[in-house]
Amino acid sequence: MSPPVPTGLAPGAVLGILGGGQLARMMALAAADLGIRCHVFAPEADSPAFDVAARHTVADYEDEAALAGFAGAVDVVTYEFENVPAATAAFLAGRAPLHPGARALAVTQDRLSEKSFIAGLGLPVAPFRAVDSLADLEAAVAELGRPSVLKTRRFGYDGKGQVKIAAGSDLAEAHEAIGRFPAILEGFVPFVREVSVVAARGIDGAFAAFDVCENEHRDHILAFTHVPANLPAAAADAAIDAARQIGEALGYVGVFAVEMFVLEGKSGTNARIVINEIAPRVHNSGHWTSEGALTSQFHQHVRAVCGFPLGATARRGRIEMENLIGDAALRWREILAEPGAHLHLYGKRDARPGRKMGHVTRLVGEDK
Amino acid sequence: MSPPVPTGLAPGAVLGILGGGQLARMMALAAADLGIRCHVFAPEADSPAFDVAARHTVADYEDEAALAGFAGAVDVVTYEFENVPAATAAFLAGRAPLHPGARALAVTQDRLSEKSFIAGLGLPVAPFRAVDSLADLEAAVAELGRPSVLKTRRFGYDGKGQVKIAAGSDLAEAHEAIGRFPAILEGFVPFVREVSVVAARGIDGAFAAFDVCENEHRDHILAFTHVPANLPAAAADAAIDAARQIGEALGYVGVFAVEMFVLEGKSGTNARIVINEIAPRVHNSGHWTSEGALTSQFHQHVRAVCGFPLGATARRGRIEMENLIGDAALRWREILAEPGAHLHLYGKRDARPGRKMGHVTRLVGEDK
Repeated sequence: MSPPVPTGLAPGAVLGILGGGQLARMMALAAADLGIRCHVFAPEADSPAFDVAARHTVADYEDEAALAGFAGAVDVVTYEFENVPAATAAFLAGRAPLHPGARALAVTQDRLSEKSFIAGLGLPVAPFRAVDSLADLEAAVAELGRPSVLKTRRFGYDGKGQVKIAAGSDLAEAHEAIGRFPAILEGFVPFVREVSVVAARGIDGAFAAFDVCENEHRDHILAFTHVPANLPAAAADAAIDAARQIGEALGYVGVFAVEMFVLEGKSGTNARIVINEIAPRVHNSGHWTSEGALTSQFHQHVRAVCGFPLGATARRGRIEMENLIGDAALRWREILAEPGAHLHLYGKRDARPGRKMGHVTRLVGEDK
Repeated sequence: MSPPVPTGLAPGAVLGILGGGQLARMMALAAADLGIRCHVFAPEADSPAFDVAARHTVADYEDEAALAGFAGAVDVVTYEFENVPAATAAFLAGRAPLHPGARALAVTQDRLSEKSFIAGLGLPVAPFRAVDSLADLEAAVAELGRPSVLKTRRFGYDGKGQVKIAAGSDLAEAHEAIGRFPAILEGFVPFVREVSVVAARGIDGAFAAFDVCENEHRDHILAFTHVPANLPAAAADAAIDAARQIGEALGYVGVFAVEMFVLEGKSGTNARIVINEIAPRVHNSGHWTSEGALTSQFHQHVRAVCGFPLGATARRGRIEMENLIGDAALRWREILAEPGAHLHLYGKRDARPGRKMGHVTRLVGEDK
């Protein structure tokens, strides 16, 4: 009984955002540019996005009275994180347009559904097996070999909920380490680098991708993004085409990211991509677009979920994005003094280790 | 008894902004990028800047209790308009750092002080005479000739409070037309185009100007800005140097704009500039910097008033800015569909004629 999807709102409309972290904050800043007012819903009273939103609600995602009030006060709902509880999504979708929709959440919240979905499209993924017991794990390791990675099906991010199965790993210990939750085992992919495609799909089915970017992780957290990626044109085209197919199959509306591994032949030739995961939201690896593309991923997402035309995604120069994690944000004054660097701080009070406090984009060169 | 000027705040600080229009709104959006929280003070309950600020106060500029509460809740105060009442500025400056300072306001709020100040620096201005009576006006017109322009000394903007003295104009009528307020008569300047310099001065005296831009007015309101301006390098250098001298002489902190006329010799040679007026604030003719420069004027202003290092001002391509006035904002969907156009809407509810509703920046070319 979902209300009809609007073909488009107008400036002055109210965008509801679930989650109040930096992604919601940057979405709200972009929405303001387009004359859209934001209402942010988050459980934490000191949510960074509250400072830049016209309204906010502090409540749990399970609080139906609060959710009903929120849905009644907005014209469309979106979210900044993929772990929106299914019941919350369903509750909201019955009361206001929800973009991206419930299918995108269902597929991407569960690694088994996600991998099965990708493989079902005929797109390349790492070999995987469902693991619901230690016996499953033993069988899967026997099939996929070592090294391989055991990952919980749900609620994993930034390396949480996963454990590597190396040559000497004890499988029972590994199964304990992930809390014996339903999981999958993924076979080893001998990748040479990681890239992602950040793309958008409009309510009308229009598709627009940003240039493929290359990601450098440290301790399982994104540390740097470089654009353009070191990737031959054919592989880049394949990467973008994979994102297009994924967006279409999900009936997706909004910005999403597809993280991929790059594999190469022996002499560095025959680059090809293998899909790792899909994020149904704006993504850290798309932060470079704020200064590096004609339209930022945040503006693009707001355009898409409001039913506005998608913006041009052409790149403006060579760009580097550096995440400021924990204490790295203390370097703010030094970064401000750096010509061509653009600092983004998220307004978080405590610079805890591992916490994303901000990022910097740097224009590395004017050329393409 | 002003408190000492800080050498610099840190992210997390609170910026107080007087005025809640589009300039305050864009300042608040930039401040958020730098981790600065904003508290906006304005008399209108539906001020566009409130939607993107952490806090706001709705009160008159003469309300000392509200001003005291505001000053006590912020780390530094700035403003979006030059007509801040002198008593308000003095009241606030006694309680919190005020940037730009009282001198900048005093000089620029009065056209006679402003012209005298500019002429006193040895910089070129149109010939001018003080007009306090009809007799003064008659004497001034006899000296400066016709055409010339009679302008009230205070509270003029966008062509308000001024009347042209043409060949057949009746002087008594002209004097009535401006309400017989204290005024100046300005001699005719046969300019071929209008340009402006938007620049910043830091707490440490550092100076940084954006490229000179060319402005096209319609009905006395800025309609388009084109960057770079059609201006030979020597004249552009002189324009920027004039801005530097003005900033220094005012002990200025923050972004300011200097509007200038360009005069040419008979064959279009010997371009030189004549200074028209100074705006002690971010300026409509600097809106192109959001997409067209490495640092926007709004980020630059926040950097300056917080005591942060100034940002790089290098231009990124050839840029055009178009103001969306009144109904022009109804073209928003068409503009969103235009590749390379970046729409900025101010969140104002009524598109009254002559009201600035938003603007568009267009990347016209990648070259310098």
